[in-house]
Amino acid sequence: MKAVGLVTEYNPFHNGHAYHAATAKKISGADVAVAVMSGNFTQRGEVTMLDKWTRASEALDNGVDLVIELPIFYAVQPAHLFAQGAISLLNQLQVSELVFGAEHPKADFKKLVTAESLFNSDEFSHYNGTYASRFNQQMKQQTGIELTDPNDILAFAYHKAVSQLQAPIKLTAIQRISNQYHDNKISSEIASASAIRHAVINQLDYSLSVPSKTATDILEAKTSIDWNTCYPYLRYFINQVTIKSLQEIYQMSEGLEYKFKDVAETATTFDQFMSGIKSKRYTYSRLSRLCLYTLLQITNDEMLAATQQPYLRVLGFNKMGQEYLHTIKKDLEIPLVTKVDRDLKNGMVNLDYRAGKFIEQLTNLKQDMQKSPIIVK
Amino acid sequence: MKAVGLVTEYNPFHNGHAYHAATAKKISGADVAVAVMSGNFTQRGEVTMLDKWTRASEALDNGVDLVIELPIFYAVQPAHLFAQGAISLLNQLQVSELVFGAEHPKADFKKLVTAESLFNSDEFSHYNGTYASRFNQQMKQQTGIELTDPNDILAFAYHKAVSQLQAPIKLTAIQRISNQYHDNKISSEIASASAIRHAVINQLDYSLSVPSKTATDILEAKTSIDWNTCYPYLRYFINQVTIKSLQEIYQMSEGLEYKFKDVAETATTFDQFMSGIKSKRYTYSRLSRLCLYTLLQITNDEMLAATQQPYLRVLGFNKMGQEYLHTIKKDLEIPLVTKVDRDLKNGMVNLDYRAGKFIEQLTNLKQDMQKSPIIVK
Repeated sequence: MKAVGLVTEYNPFHNGHAYHAATAKKISGADVAVAVMSGNFTQRGEVTMLDKWTRASEALDNGVDLVIELPIFYAVQPAHLFAQGAISLLNQLQVSELVFGAEHPKADFKKLVTAESLFNSDEFSHYNGTYASRFNQQMKQQTGIELTDPNDILAFAYHKAVSQLQAPIKLTAIQRISNQYHDNKISSEIASASAIRHAVINQLDYSLSVPSKTATDILEAKTSIDWNTCYPYLRYFINQVTIKSLQEIYQMSEGLEYKFKDVAETATTFDQFMSGIKSKRYTYSRLSRLCLYTLLQITNDEMLAATQQPYLRVLGFNKMGQEYLHTIKKDLEIPLVTKVDRDLKNGMVNLDYRAGKFIEQLTNLKQDMQKSPIIVK
Repeated sequence: MKAVGLVTEYNPFHNGHAYHAATAKKISGADVAVAVMSGNFTQRGEVTMLDKWTRASEALDNGVDLVIELPIFYAVQPAHLFAQGAISLLNQLQVSELVFGAEHPKADFKKLVTAESLFNSDEFSHYNGTYASRFNQQMKQQTGIELTDPNDILAFAYHKAVSQLQAPIKLTAIQRISNQYHDNKISSEIASASAIRHAVINQLDYSLSVPSKTATDILEAKTSIDWNTCYPYLRYFINQVTIKSLQEIYQMSEGLEYKFKDVAETATTFDQFMSGIKSKRYTYSRLSRLCLYTLLQITNDEMLAATQQPYLRVLGFNKMGQEYLHTIKKDLEIPLVTKVDRDLKNGMVNLDYRAGKFIEQLTNLKQDMQKSPIIVK
């Protein structure tokens, strides 16, 4: 059996995602489409509008055969770590090809990877705004390619990860159709996830752009969660925690802990908080992720330990997906998790478990304990 | 000038409290009544129904001349530490007499203190349910006095503290009038604070039992805070925090941290949580206080450090109170705090400050920064 990989957030699952899955299968000639999907939190440090089970179920309903959760220690990271995590899981899953959308699918991303490798890699670990723009300038001079669009950046990161991991995965970029990621109007059957979220929040019509299951799921969701819902908890935590403990949070560096403490005192909304901590030094996404690490109290030690022990958490499959999983099972080098028990929750799966507990508290939707993979007949 | 001391929570301030202040002045012949009052949290580990400024203002309106905040590291403690803290502040404040209500004011509390001193004091530090009842049995055999009513227990603790601190404070017990502390019906002008809180929550008439200012304050309070309001924050914190950090919380001992973690997973209300963690080993108050330390993330180290550095935080005064404060100022051995600045908030006053921040977040009522003592003309 041949499998094609998809790296996804599905926030929420829309027609573009269904098109993506179908195209990936067609291009690659694969029997199954395997999606590695972020759990309840995204790469940009946001809460997903629907929980992971609902989104996995939408995917299985619309052409995806197997959904694996991208653990939070990979999912909520800058592009290069996100891509590295996703590629390493897809490699374990033995997909022969990864099909992904890019703003400039014809760009020579491989050439960029070679050019980038000549850079000072110490600097790369800072991934702050200043560095990014300097990096881009030089890249453009050397390769003629400008790396500014989010999916192009991910495309580059996939190429880099495949090269680093020496993964035998073919990388195929397809044109991202429709409007830009940040557009807000829904004018066609294909719209971006952010446009759909914007429409949902503002009670505009989005039905054209999503499969019927997604439309139903959004209508039926009792609680709409976003940073506004989560901020009171973040604020409470920052106000009470000691500077010493706050310093231990993953990526809390360069005095940001003092800024967090100062700003949380008076900022009553998440927007106010972000305005207060934002500076040229850091991108919005970097800070939003840091807010998430803080909310979930993820320490540096915990993050480092977690990334040393990746796993494949199965969220769901159909008959084909199940069959595929069965054929690759024996060759897996990392654990396959289908159910979270006491040991896993306190051990390997702890960060995802805690992230799920927070969502459970806000939504009353079970996330981990007593949950089995979704089986679609 | 002569001052009489009152140890209070005023949750809320009622007619019995006004009677208490008037009687204390009359009995002692004092010029001023100085109340040491718990801030936003009580000795039993509850949130006060009105914030500390509102309650201080009610007191100043009804016969009290000076209100000093009992810092949280004294206020939220078992009776013996609560009493020790209050007596030590009243001693600094040079009150010559403390007048307090007791269920059995004629009991020989001094005799009890002597009898108790013959006990194994190591055991006393456990102050758990089993110990309390064993202690009581022996006390009754030796002295004929049974120490079971809450104000009798405090009376005993005041005597013990005065003896330990060798404070030149006369202790005068007066009869607690009206119904028992746990009664719920309001049938006279004098009702217990818990009866009044019960009436407020259940929208029963309590107007007979409180001064007009208290009645107005309760009506005008926008947010009613209790453990139900606070529990989501406690639950979130327990779910996310590591066992290691939870173990560092003050009084978190004997594996309670595991119980906290286990129960918080499924308990969706504070009542459910308390039922889950309650055992014969611990009294409800002991656990309720532990919940509060956890909510405010007060570590053992922080609590120990804070108790080493007490202070007198002035919440308000009238002309007489101000004059009195002026006469004793020069003899104070501990700092007098009238305004919380940056240094104080990060230093000596930090625990009270954090407790206040939490209340601020829930009520939008400023608690510390930019607050000056209430001045009643």
